[in-house]
Parts: sequence; C-alpha cells; structure tokens
Amino acid sequence: MHAVFRPSGSEHAGRQWRAFHLIVLAAGLLAVALLSVEGLPPSLDRLLTVIVEAVAIVFFAEYVARLWTAPESARFAGLSDGMARLRWALSANGLISLMAVVPIIAVTSGTIHADSDAVPIFCVLWILKLNVHAPAMNTLARVIANERASLASVVIIFVMVLVTAATFTHLLERHRQPELFGSIPDALWWAVVTLTTTGYGDVVPHTVGGKMVGSVVMVSGILVLALMTGILATGFSEEERRREYLRVWDQVTRVPLFTQLGTVTLSEIVSKLRVRHYPARIVVVRRDEPGDSMFFISEGEVEVRLTRGSVTLSQGGFFGEMALLDRLPRSATVVTSQPTTLLVLYASDFYEIAANIPSLVEAVEHEARRRRAENLGTVAKTDAS
Amino acid sequence: MHAVFRPSGSEHAGRQWRAFHLIVLAAGLLAVALLSVEGLPPSLDRLLTVIVEAVAIVFFAEYVARLWTAPESARFAGLSDGMARLRWALSANGLISLMAVVPIIAVTSGTIHADSDAVPIFCVLWILKLNVHAPAMNTLARVIANERASLASVVIIFVMVLVTAATFTHLLERHRQPELFGSIPDALWWAVVTLTTTGYGDVVPHTVGGKMVGSVVMVSGILVLALMTGILATGFSEEERRREYLRVWDQVTRVPLFTQLGTVTLSEIVSKLRVRHYPARIVVVRRDEPGDSMFFISEGEVEVRLTRGSVTLSQGGFFGEMALLDRLPRSATVVTSQPTTLLVLYASDFYEIAANIPSLVEAVEHEARRRRAENLGTVAKTDAS
Amino acid sequence: MHAVFRPSGSEHAGRQWRAFHLIVLAAGLLAVALLSVEGLPPSLDRLLTVIVEAVAIVFFAEYVARLWTAPESARFAGLSDGMARLRWALSANGLISLMAVVPIIAVTSGTIHADSDAVPIFCVLWILKLNVHAPAMNTLARVIANERASLASVVIIFVMVLVTAATFTHLLERHRQPELFGSIPDALWWAVVTLTTTGYGDVVPHTVGGKMVGSVVMVSGILVLALMTGILATGFSEEERRREYLRVWDQVTRVPLFTQLGTVTLSEIVSKLRVRHYPARIVVVRRDEPGDSMFFISEGEVEVRLTRGSVTLSQGGFFGEMALLDRLPRSATVVTSQPTTLLVLYASDFYEIAANIPSLVEAVEHEARRRRAENLGTVAKTDAS
Amino acid sequence: MHAVFRPSGSEHAGRQWRAFHLIVLAAGLLAVALLSVEGLPPSLDRLLTVIVEAVAIVFFAEYVARLWTAPESARFAGLSDGMARLRWALSANGLISLMAVVPIIAVTSGTIHADSDAVPIFCVLWILKLNVHAPAMNTLARVIANERASLASVVIIFVMVLVTAATFTHLLERHRQPELFGSIPDALWWAVVTLTTTGYGDVVPHTVGGKMVGSVVMVSGILVLALMTGILATGFSEEERRREYLRVWDQVTRVPLFTQLGTVTLSEIVSKLRVRHYPARIVVVRRDEPGDSMFFISEGEVEVRLTRGSVTLSQGGFFGEMALLDRLPRSATVVTSQPTTLLVLYASDFYEIAANIPSLVEAVEHEARRRRAENLGTVAKTDAS
Repeated sequence: MHAVFRPSGSEHAGRQWRAFHLIVLAAGLLAVALLSVEGLPPSLDRLLTVIVEAVAIVFFAEYVARLWTAPESARFAGLSDGMARLRWALSANGLISLMAVVPIIAVTSGTIHADSDAVPIFCVLWILKLNVHAPAMNTLARVIANERASLASVVIIFVMVLVTAATFTHLLERHRQPELFGSIPDALWWAVVTLTTTGYGDVVPHTVGGKMVGSVVMVSGILVLALMTGILATGFSEEERRREYLRVWDQVTRVPLFTQLGTVTLSEIVSKLRVRHYPARIVVVRRDEPGDSMFFISEGEVEVRLTRGSVTLSQGGFFGEMALLDRLPRSATVVTSQPTTLLVLYASDFYEIAANIPSLVEAVEHEARRRRAENLGTVAKTDAS
Repeated sequence: MHAVFRPSGSEHAGRQWRAFHLIVLAAGLLAVALLSVEGLPPSLDRLLTVIVEAVAIVFFAEYVARLWTAPESARFAGLSDGMARLRWALSANGLISLMAVVPIIAVTSGTIHADSDAVPIFCVLWILKLNVHAPAMNTLARVIANERASLASVVIIFVMVLVTAATFTHLLERHRQPELFGSIPDALWWAVVTLTTTGYGDVVPHTVGGKMVGSVVMVSGILVLALMTGILATGFSEEERRREYLRVWDQVTRVPLFTQLGTVTLSEIVSKLRVRHYPARIVVVRRDEPGDSMFFISEGEVEVRLTRGSVTLSQGGFFGEMALLDRLPRSATVVTSQPTTLLVLYASDFYEIAANIPSLVEAVEHEARRRRAENLGTVAKTDAS
Repeated sequence: MHAVFRPSGSEHAGRQWRAFHLIVLAAGLLAVALLSVEGLPPSLDRLLTVIVEAVAIVFFAEYVARLWTAPESARFAGLSDGMARLRWALSANGLISLMAVVPIIAVTSGTIHADSDAVPIFCVLWILKLNVHAPAMNTLARVIANERASLASVVIIFVMVLVTAATFTHLLERHRQPELFGSIPDALWWAVVTLTTTGYGDVVPHTVGGKMVGSVVMVSGILVLALMTGILATGFSEEERRREYLRVWDQVTRVPLFTQLGTVTLSEIVSKLRVRHYPARIVVVRRDEPGDSMFFISEGEVEVRLTRGSVTLSQGGFFGEMALLDRLPRSATVVTSQPTTLLVLYASDFYEIAANIPSLVEAVEHEARRRRAENLGTVAKTDAS
Repeated sequence: MHAVFRPSGSEHAGRQWRAFHLIVLAAGLLAVALLSVEGLPPSLDRLLTVIVEAVAIVFFAEYVARLWTAPESARFAGLSDGMARLRWALSANGLISLMAVVPIIAVTSGTIHADSDAVPIFCVLWILKLNVHAPAMNTLARVIANERASLASVVIIFVMVLVTAATFTHLLERHRQPELFGSIPDALWWAVVTLTTTGYGDVVPHTVGGKMVGSVVMVSGILVLALMTGILATGFSEEERRREYLRVWDQVTRVPLFTQLGTVTLSEIVSKLRVRHYPARIVVVRRDEPGDSMFFISEGEVEVRLTRGSVTLSQGGFFGEMALLDRLPRSATVVTSQPTTLLVLYASDFYEIAANIPSLVEAVEHEARRRRAENLGTVAKTDAS
C-alpha cells in the first residue's frame, strides 16, 4: 500500500550537496551586496567580483548538470533525450536558471563595474534557489492555496479600509499638510504605513479629524492581522496533521511490531506517531534525564550506550520504553550512528493507545524484558573483555 | 435532504460579470485617486474625468438593472412589481447605489473640478461594492458576531489601558512637552499610536516616568493583539469547519459511490471531504508528481491525459486513487475541461476512513480495476487510430 | 442537576441600568479629558466641571446604594446588617468606589481648577468601573491564569533579550550617540521600543554592530508576539469550550425535546449546541435567505411571520428545522417578541448527531409535520378573518 | 507504571531559594545598569559597585556549592567525586558560571570603573540564570524544535523578501537618497525595519517605486508574522496537551477514587483533569461564588471553612462536587494550609465523563453524602465547644 521514493543511498550525498549549495549561495549574495557599497578599495572590489563570477560559474555548472540529467527525470519519461533537455531548458525553471548566470558572467568578465546595476538585478534570481532549502515551503504554499477564499476576503477588507481612510484623510489634512496629503495616492502611502502598524512617522495627521481616522486605521490594522493569523493558524494546523500522517504511514511498515497489528489499530497508531529525522552522531536521549517518549527505528541505526558497554539497534528496533512503562529516567544514552529516521510515541499517546490496544503494550513489554536480559549478557561480555 | 440553489447554467456568465465589475471598479477608484493629484496636464485630467464618468454610468446601468429585476428577488415575493422596486429603491442597498452614481454624474457633467471634493466623497461608496468579490466575507462577519462578547472585553481592556496611560503620561510629561502632552486628548493620540505598536515617533515621552508608562503600554499592545488573535483564530476554526461540512453535504449526493453508503458512514465521510472549485483548463494533478489525495467529480468534467491518449470523466467519476491505494506517483495529468467542482479526499483521511468502512475501499478498488482495464482498451484504440 | 441564578424578572432593569451607567461613565471620562485642555472658554470650563461633579454624585449615589444593599449579598450571609456594610466599605471594592467620588466632589465643589491634577488622578479610578460592561473579562482572566507558567516564560525570554540587547547596543553605540545610548537604562528604552516593534525612531542605532543587534531584536519581537499569541489562542479555545458547555447545560433542560433523551445522548448534544441571547424585536432568521441552523427556545418568545399571518412560539419550541431537513431557504421571518435565549444547532452538527441519534431527528420531523399542519390552520384562520 | 522524581520535602526550601536567587539577580542587573550612567555621585557609584561585587560573591558561592555537590547529580553517577567535579567545571554550565563571577570580582576589587566595559559584558552572562525561573521554557524550546522545518521555511521566506526588497529599493532610491540607500547593506537595514513592521522612520523611501516596494514589504511582514504565529500556535497546543497529560498521570495515582477505576476509564479521565499547584494560604474556592469545577487533592492539605467551623482535607480527598452535582454556588471557602497540588475537573468534562462512567459519579455522590453527614457532626461538635 506504500513505497519509498527517495533513494536512501544517495541521501547523504544530497545533504552534503545542499550544504555546499547553501554556502555558495550565501557567499554570492553577500558579495553582490558588498559590491554595491561605494568607495571600496580596488583590491576588495576585485575579490568580490571574482567571488560573484565563481558563484555564477558554479550555478552555470549546476545548470549544465541539470540540463544533462533532464532525461532521467520522471517528468519527461516518454521523450527522447534531446527533447527532454529542450523541454527543461524552455521550462520556467530552466529559463530562470539560465538568466541567473549568463548575464552575470557576461557583465563581470567584460566591463567590470561599468554597469553595476545589471549584477544585482540578475543576482536577485539567485534568491529563488533558496527555495530548495525550505523543507516546509510546500506545506505553507498549500495552506495559502486552501485558505485563498478567506485570505482574499481579508485582503479586500484591507483595501476597503485603505482607500476609505486615504480619501478621508486627504480631505481632512490637505490644507494643513499640502505636500504630504495633497493627493489620494500620497494619502495611500500614509494609510499603508499605518494599517500595517509600521508607523514610519514621515507622514502623520495633524488635525483632530485626521487623528481620529488614523486611530480607527491602527485598530483595524490589529484586527486585520488577527484575522489573517487566525485563518493561517487554522489552515496550517489541518495541513500539518495531514502531512505528518502520510510521513508516518510511509515509515511505519518498516517496523515489524506495527505491521503485525490489524488495519484499524494501525490506523489509530499512525495518527499518534511522529517522524523525526536525525543526522549521524546526534544524542537522541541522554542517560538520567527524565523521558516522556519512546522511539521506533524505521531507518538507520543507533548506538545504545549503557553504563559499561554499548549495543547497536537497527531498523525495526525500539528504545526508551522504560520511561513509558515505569516512568523512570533514561537508563542509557542513545546516539545515532548514521542518518536515522525515528518514529516517536509520546507517553500521553502511549497511555491512550495502551487502554485500547493491550496487545501493543504486551509486545513492547515482552520485547523489553527480552532485550534487558540480552543487554545483561552484552554487559557481562564487555566486562570479560 | 438537500438541494442546490445556484443555477449552474448562469454560473459562467456570473463569473464573467464579476471580473468585468472588478475591472470597472478598479479603474474607477484609480481614476478618482489620480484626479486628486495637483497640477496634472489638462489632457490627462480630462481623460480621468471621462473614466470616472464612464464608471459612474456603468454603475448607474447596474442600478437600473437591479431596480428592474427587484421583483424577481425572493425577498419581495408576495409584492406587486412596482412595490418590489420601490422597496428595493428605499432599502439601504438601493439608496447607497443611487448615492454612489447620481452626484458624480451631476458634478462631472456640470462643473468639472470646480468642487472636486464631492467626487472622492461619493466615490468612497464604490468601495462598498468590493464586498461582492469577497467570497468569505460572510464567514468573517459571523466569526466576529459569534465572538462579540470576547471581542468587546478586549476592546474594553484596550480603552482602559488607553485612558489610564494617557492620564498618567499627561501628568508626567506636561511640563517637559506642553505642546504634545498638554491635555489628555493630546496624550490619547500618543497612547493609541503606542498601544497599537504603530509608533510614529511624532510624540515620544521624555521623562523616566513617561518612558516607564510607555513601556507598559507597548507590552500591553502585544497582549491585546495576542488576545484578539486568539479569539478570532478559535472562532474562525469552528465556523470554517461548519461551512465546509455544509458545502460538502450539498455536493456529496451527486457522487453515486457515496450515496450508496449508509447515513452514519456518509456523515463520517462528509466531515473528511473538502470542496474545491476549479475554472476550465486548470491542471488538477500532474503526471509523475507524488500525490496525497484522490478526487471525486461532483460537477463538471475533466480530461485524463494518459501517455498515449486521453479519457473524459464526468459527474460521479473519480481519479487519483492510485496515489492512495499504492502510494505511487500520478500516472496521468488531469485537466478540467469546464468549470468543475471536485471533492478532495486526502490520503491521511482515506486511511482513517478505510479502517472503519472497508466497503468504500472495496468500491474504489473495484472501480479502479475496471477503469484500468477500460483505459487499456482506450489506449489500444488510440494506438490503432 | 442544575439551577439558574439570574432572576429573569430584573434582567430588563439590569440592562437599562448598565446602559445608563455606561453613558454616565463615558460622559464623565470625556469631561475630565476635555477639562485638561488649556485655554478653554470659562463657560465651557464651568459646564465640564458641572458634568464631572454630576457624574461623581451619580457614582456616590451608587456607592451609598451598594453600601445599603451589602447585607443582601450572599457574601456576607451570616453577618448582621451593620457588620456586612462595614465589611463591604473596607473591602477593595468599597474603598476604590469611595476614593473615586469623595476627592472629586471635594475638589470641584471647593476650589475649581486650583489643583486640577487631583481630578484626573482620582477619575482614573472610574475606568475600573468599565469592568462591569465586559461580559467575557472572566474568561480572559482565567485563560491568563491557566497559562501563567507559559506566559511567565515568554516574559522571561522578553527580559533576557531586552537586557542583553541593551547592554550590547550601549557598548556599541555609546561613542557615536552618547546622549541616546550613554547608559544601559537609556539603551533599555530603545530595546523596549524595538522589541515590541513599536519603533518610534527617536533612538536608532547608527553603527553596523548596533544595527545587527537591532535586527535580531526586531525578529525576536516577532517571535515573542507569535509565542504569546500561540499560548493565548490555545488557552482561550479550551476555556471557551468549557464555558459554552456550561451555558448550554443550564439552558438545555428547559426544552422538553432534549430532556426526554438519555444522559449519554444529551451530553453529546450539549457539546454541539450554542447559546445565543437576543434582545426584543430582533430578526433571528429572514424569509428566503438560505439557512444553516435550527433554533430551540429556552427562554422568551418569538413571532414567526408567515406569508399571511404569524404564529407565536415560546419556551421549548423550535424553528428553522426545514433549512436542515430539506436544505430549503427560510420559509418565514422570525422576530423575538421579548428578550429571548435560543439554543442554536448548526446543520453540520445536526447531520453528525442525526447519524447516531435517529430518535432526535424523528422527533424533530414529527413535530415539524404537526406544526406545518397547524400553521396551515392558522393561515386559513387568518385568511378567514 | 509511574513514580515521582521531585523530593516533596525540600520543595519548600527550593521555592525560598528561587525567590532569593531572583531578588539577587534583579539587584545585580539593576546595579550594573545604573553603574553605566555617567556622572553619578561618587557615593552612589561606590554603593552600586559594592552591590555588583556582593551579587558576584553570592553567585561565586553558588558556583562552589554546585561544584561541591556535582557528584550527587545523577549525570555523573559512575564517576569518582573528583572526576565528577572536574567534568562539571568543564561543562558549558560550569564554564559560564565561572566566567559570570571571576572577571567581575577581579575588575571591581582591583581598578573600579577603570575599564567599566568589562563589567556589563560579563554580567550579561547573569541573565542566563533567569532560565531557572521560567517553568515552561522547556515546552517552548520543544515546540520550536518540533516545528523547526516550518519555522525554517518562514525564515527563508523572510530572507527572500528581505534581499529582493533591499536590492530593488537600492536601485530605485539610490539617486534620491544616496546616503541612506547607497548600498544594498544600507537598504537591508531599511528592509528589516520595514518587514518586522517596526518602522523607525530613519530611512523611508521617497520615490513612487520605492514606496510600492515598501508597501509590499509591509504586507509581507504581516503575512510572515501570521504564518509564524500559526505554526507556533499549532505546535504549542499539541505540546501543551502532551505535557499536561503526563503531569496529571503522575498525580492521579495518589487519589484512591481514580485508581479503583479500570485502565480504559482512567486513561479517559486523565485527559480531562488539569494539574494546579497552589502555595500555602491561598483561597481555592470562595463561599457563595458560582463554581464550575471540582478538585481532587493529590498532594498537600486544604482547610474547608464552613459557616461555623472548619474541616481539614488531605491527599486523596476532594471538594467542590456540589457545584457540579447540583449547579449550586460554593457552600464553603477552601484555603490551602500547605503547598498543595490539586487535580481540577471542570463541569463540562465531568458531564461528558459522567455519561460514560456512571461508577465515578456514583462514587462522588456517595462520598459527598457521607462527608455531608460527617460535616454536620463536625459543625455540631464545633458548636458545642
């Protein structure tokens, strides 16, 4: 009923690539920003130009690589290699990627600083690459899409307040401050600054009427913010629940303890579990700290550091159950030995489930007893060595 | 147990009318705003005046049309045509619509720009027409109505902080800044600007005492905003759930797959489905992308674009079930061929329902198998052609 | 299992008294505020002084009345009349009420405007009387009390950011702006203004380091606001649910339709109903509008205006069920004929309940059929007259 | 299945120590802040220096005490005393604690005010000690950790808006305001101030294009704030539910009334109860006030003040049930006689539970009847004395 898409093997390489990409991106944006400062010493100016060029070349290499591997993408499955590459090159992604590198290489390699405006304008396209590093961008986009009717209504309220306030303040303040409230567009600037509660103070009403309109606008600003937050909070909560359920569902079948349960029971447990991804060498639980959750390993491997030795647990294993069964502090420190995906079951959810699914508790308790005995053996062996 | 109100046939015309209305409205408001700018070239001034006049005429035509069709409205059902029109003309809606057009036509056709103040004042009434374009305005209004007791309390806290802060700051700052804090009304302006965290900076306390009061007011501002948001978020979440349930309920009976279920089961599924309206020629799912939802067509028609041919699905049909049953990427691109209403079932909800209603899963699986075989036939036929 | 505290008879008088109280209070505060303006014409000054005095006298009369009726309060049940009055006079409420009137009467009747400071200071105590008009103040207070641990933590984060930012900005900006960042207390003022995102602009960092610290403070400000809102939203939602449940519970037993249900069923319905209080002569539903709820009368009386006549429904009656049973628009306008308390059942909740409690639906349907027939009779009778 | 960690006996001492710690900390920070003011009278300067030194000495004593008792900590369980102390001294906590005291003692005892900068820098480390006083800091930290993917996405949106806005405004405003928008870093300062809706007003766009970009940035600021709040509100609500469940679970077994229930029933009740900690001599309920909750004592002791005498209830007892059973006002005032932990059951939850668990209601009713009779006896006895 489910399958994994991401190839587990190349995940580590992917993470390293992302880190490198982020560093190059940050360096590039920083260099572009500093280049815009007037009166830099020529040597620094040259260095920054070289950095911008280097970053552009890295992104150009990325462009070529993506173009080359376009046929591997599932999106162009039925096409010939040439057609797939052409299609990608003409897609929005392909065009933006090209525009983000070619002009910069042209400008910087040709007449450096002659027309420095072109550099920042095209480099702004780099910022779109940040998208790759935002894991939950999809969720946010879907929340906004799902709630678009409500958000549009708030935007319309926003515009209604804006236009009404600008018109009245223009009429009220025009004679006292002709240069600031002389026209409705001028007054609109004030209205935006006020309604968002930014309040620069460059334009401020002086008449009593203008101040009254201003007060209403400020309070409306709070209301608009509150409505928008309310809408997004509701939408986000629902979307997040859905996403998490699917993430858990994709992981849960790797844990034999769960797969032996019936469908109804499984579906209930899935809604209680949480997925957590950990890089290698991260401490998941620490000895002697109080604990309120147990962990199931759906991918990767952890090292359980007991007092005098350590045990390795891999896919399908679980740990931390003592904190739930006996409410005792952690009896061992657990460290990931490779990038690991864990399913977390919080104590509160465990007790709720436990009442309805005694078989799970039994299985956990039985496994715990078995492992405790085995651990004693391991410890004894470690002592002997 | 339910019926549809909106006449499906005139929906398309309605959408086109709304788009035209919005463009006219925007043009009108923009022209009024620009007209208020001093020192425009006479030709532009004349053009803008003509636009304002044209918009007013469109709205006047709308007024006449609404007046004429008033007897068709269910609201004036028992009345004679004349009485119905008179009643509408004297209703708030009718009077506002009249005031929003007649004065402008009078002013602009008579002495242009002589008394330009009249134009913006009456045009502000146009902004009320934006209301039509806000689909969720009703929901927001009901949330505010339902939570009025809580909101009133927050407003009272707001007023209490405002008056207390203004009084004390007036007493503390009066001697240092007599022109800014010389009276309580003056100090109230500062208090509003501060409590809403707008902070123009035109009035700022200088004494240590005044700054302390100011700090308390700012922190109170955050608290007031947080309380208001909390209230509205709670109310919005509840209202939205209710609305969505009804929307689904009105659509769900057009899908035979659902109507054959019992009432208890149906009621559970309704709370899980979501309604989505799509215009024509919109891509609903894209081939090879991962999917987490399936779709039921309650109105309209979609085109399923398979690798080598396409199939049309209409009311009662469903698609996207493979993403749920096998967790595979989308096997086809689906595009709406007319304005279409879909019922979305997310994977997380499908699995939860599946556990309790095996009959639905069976029905979906059976239908899917049947359609897969049929599709093969379609494809074969397409190949042959 | 429950009882009503509020005496229904005096409710109307109470509402009138509250309206009068609010007007007096507003007039008093307005007069005090205006009195602080310098250079008023002597006649206006005299008028305002008279108003302040009159308000003080009203509040003094209120004080005497409350002192007199103290023995009636349940709080002093076991005491003699004299003791009860003494106890009330010495309670916080009593002392504040006294201080809010005696000094003002003394000052204004004696040397008017001689020492005008005393007036606003003591009048600030009037603002505490606003409390009476905030129906949900209790709920808000309890939310803040329940979440005090979380809120305290946010306040501590607030203080930590404040002090750290002030110290570093003081060190960084001291040399460039000695008069604004010369000491940590000076820098604290800037930090508060920035962390609350008020941003007066009277104090702004000029060094690069100061601007970086400032940026961190502003972003922290957003985080603090978001955390506080999150905490209060969660708490408010839970508290509101509890309150509403009790309010419904206190009303539900007056509707025979509900009381004949079993405890389990009743408890489920109670969590779905909502209480709404309406004054007299309010339109609850309007003919021909779409409806999504039905109403049960737990107190008061409504008039159902049918096409050609009207019917009166009183306690225990219900209306609006056609919108739920058949999803039709309202067939009549319903207006309250006295202050009325209604229990609202939304369509979404009705369908959910209906699946589990067929007996309720049956009862509603049966009653609806009976009343429809009866209404026909009424209409016929009206026709005959 | 559970155990208590905190030693109940030393809890009182711990509370006193925390109060003392907080006062010392506040005094220290205040003294450091005041010391930074220029031109203090020498005597005050000396006093403040002495206070700073005294606070540093107290914290040094705390450092020594913590170093000494390090071996008692469970964290260094297997180690010798010396090793445990060395490990603690070299831990982050140990090093910070040392740096927070040694330099200050050195500076102030040696050359006072000679290099006053060192004092505030090292004293900032004191602020980290505030952490101890934030009871819910852990919850907040975990919410932020759990939602880190979503928050990171919001931060990336934040950075994307920031960089894009700064680049465009730089290009648009550069010629009009070369000193304020002359470089992208300069424009970034404006963008941060605007996107957080702080709006100092020290840098404001003057061109039409700049104002348009500015308007978009301000509205984005509201969206960013709304998204962040939505994320944190969702996360906080879930985390709080989990924590509270565990807190109740740890307390519930001390109340015999609950332990005699089955596991399924118990698990349901636990999710309804709330834990409240009260210091000694606090009024929990007040006679004659309306009540909506009953209380179970899981730790400590309360005094029930009846009309003519009082009864003591200790661990396992309960009170306030009359408000639930009969919806009557409180019949007695209840005051804690020592620090007490109560489990609160709100009326709304009681009625919901009652429907499913008649045995609990029976137990409460039976106990209530018994205690009522007993109380009568107590009252009689008190009368006799």
